Amino acid sequence: MSAKTDPYATAGVDYARVDALKILAQRSALSTASNLGRNGTQEVEASRGESAYVMNVGGTLIASITECLGTKALIADAVRSLTGRTHYDTIAQDTIASAVNDLVSVGAIPLSIQAYWAAGGSEWFSDMARMQDLVQGWQAACDRCGVAWGGGETPALKGVIADNCIDLAATCVGIVKSREHLTLGEKLAAGDAIVTFASSGIHANGVSLARQLADRLPEGYATKIDDGRCFGEALLDPTALYAEVMRALSEAGIIPHYAVNITGHGWRKLMRHSSRLTYRISRLPAVPPVLAFIRREADLNQQDAYGTLNMGAGFAIFVQASEVEAVCEIAASVGIKAVHIGVVEQGNKQVIIEPIGVIFDATELQVRT
Amino acid sequence: MSAKTDPYATAGVDYARVDALKILAQRSALSTASNLGRNGTQEVEASRGESAYVMNVGGTLIASITECLGTKALIADAVRSLTGRTHYDTIAQDTIASAVNDLVSVGAIPLSIQAYWAAGGSEWFSDMARMQDLVQGWQAACDRCGVAWGGGETPALKGVIADNCIDLAATCVGIVKSREHLTLGEKLAAGDAIVTFASSGIHANGVSLARQLADRLPEGYATKIDDGRCFGEALLDPTALYAEVMRALSEAGIIPHYAVNITGHGWRKLMRHSSRLTYRISRLPAVPPVLAFIRREADLNQQDAYGTLNMGAGFAIFVQASEVEAVCEIAASVGIKAVHIGVVEQGNKQVIIEPIGVIFDATELQVRT
Repeated sequence: MSAKTDPYATAGVDYARVDALKILAQRSALSTASNLGRNGTQEVEASRGESAYVMNVGGTLIASITECLGTKALIADAVRSLTGRTHYDTIAQDTIASAVNDLVSVGAIPLSIQAYWAAGGSEWFSDMARMQDLVQGWQAACDRCGVAWGGGETPALKGVIADNCIDLAATCVGIVKSREHLTLGEKLAAGDAIVTFASSGIHANGVSLARQLADRLPEGYATKIDDGRCFGEALLDPTALYAEVMRALSEAGIIPHYAVNITGHGWRKLMRHSSRLTYRISRLPAVPPVLAFIRREADLNQQDAYGTLNMGAGFAIFVQASEVEAVCEIAASVGIKAVHIGVVEQGNKQVIIEPIGVIFDATELQVRT
Repeated sequence: MSAKTDPYATAGVDYARVDALKILAQRSALSTASNLGRNGTQEVEASRGESAYVMNVGGTLIASITECLGTKALIADAVRSLTGRTHYDTIAQDTIASAVNDLVSVGAIPLSIQAYWAAGGSEWFSDMARMQDLVQGWQAACDRCGVAWGGGETPALKGVIADNCIDLAATCVGIVKSREHLTLGEKLAAGDAIVTFASSGIHANGVSLARQLADRLPEGYATKIDDGRCFGEALLDPTALYAEVMRALSEAGIIPHYAVNITGHGWRKLMRHSSRLTYRISRLPAVPPVLAFIRREADLNQQDAYGTLNMGAGFAIFVQASEVEAVCEIAASVGIKAVHIGVVEQGNKQVIIEPIGVIFDATELQVRT
């Protein structure tokens, strides 16, 4: 995908530009790793640039991550008049999912959540229905992930946050049982099976594109999609939480060689690990109706759709081929549809999605040094 | 201070409204504490509602906090044309200070930082001078606090964050050496001495008020203050970092009974702990020229000034009277001016600032359930 045709660049988000900053910041961050030494603590080097940062504190492996919702709350605000619901209960789950799904991808058990709710002004907090839905949804998502909501920060930032808007983020802290439970890719190798867990819809990724599409549709968010629901309501299906399935796998003794939370960059994320390997996909999971609708109405080709949206795969794990059957059964037992989509092979770093003739090469995912 | 005369209410930030949300969220958060049990982990109950959340994970005490800069970056943006500097190196330190100073107030050793830099659009990241100053300042502040910069999130949130603005926050994770090193107020008692550490200026607290004042001054941020500097430049002095002095005290075997990072609510924060105690202040630290200027030009009475700004006290610790001399010497050895300002007494929950005849009672700090 070139910058010119990146659907996100036309939606006002130039990831190439943001990624340049990421790389600059990552190099600078790396130089601070030695500060840990004087506290008898070391970083787990393989976690640098991965989805959560892991430290070894006297044998206890502590993982942490801060992630944000993005712009999905703008959809909730716009759809409220259609549905009569604030949707901030599901927005809360989306925000927690952004942090927890990242944290569990390194093999950690999530323990606590810090809330970061930065509003455009204190008046945001006087809409009681919205506020109560946010609090209730936040609590419910914490319960579902088995984490304690430890506290948070609720600033009113007039002039920084847009009027009547809120910037939602979550920090998740967890532990990894032992070094053997880390899923940082050290065992990732040719022959590994690639298994995806079903997404519940758009999650919180591709939202600017969806908003732009709503602006263009004559009926906007009220437009019916293929399953008969409104576009806006379908967009607000809460992000799937993968903490429970990862816990269940761990308890069954299955430790993936690697795991990826599929968010920005869509299926390009399958080649997130720094290894030089080819990811050959031979089967596709079902595409949620809301994503099929976006692809058709926004006139995305398959390259752009799979390079931007989750297209039905919210999370991917890389496991021994012999474990695939057990993985699918365990996932089903906790209500998650798992699909064995392909295999890791020797070869250039690329994702080959055979059923739709799409190839992403290494240059198309520059989020790491 | 009544809501009517709260200088912050007139500056567009109604803390009473935000605090109502805090209380609702805190109650809901409390109900999630039991989720930790199934992981063999317990929360340290006394940390609920304190400045950082602490969990006991098999004997390892893990503390975490997410805090934000607030609106101070707007001052940096406005002052840049006066000074020719972006000031984002010091803005970075302010942001890290907000998290680290909170974390060390519970007795924790800071270990890692996650950056949260949410911009109004990807174009924010194309101003290379600003971006490099932010990265360099962030790294330098991490080095000064002895923490590893573990990673972060740099979203572009057009429509949520104002155009060409950035919402900066930091998460700090640390550990507490043992239960005896926790400074959660369990030993706070009548007879304890109150010692403050000097602030370096406004820090990141009272910024909306300062911006409003700049708008009213004929020469704005270029106005000279008493020490001959420009108002805008003085506002941008970076927040003092208190990690080093707290570490030095710990190494000398001095464990405060309680500690407070003095931010929003100014000196009202001295009665942050839930105990029913009186805090009698008989001596005041020097007021930084920039705060003296704000008090005079914004026509704040002492009640409002000390109830809103740090007025020279960036951090306070509560220690045994016999330790005061050692505290002051140790602080001086790491370049921090400590002042013994008063004593904790039996009595109603209140802060009595005798030199200026100001009393804050318990109703004026409702940030806890």
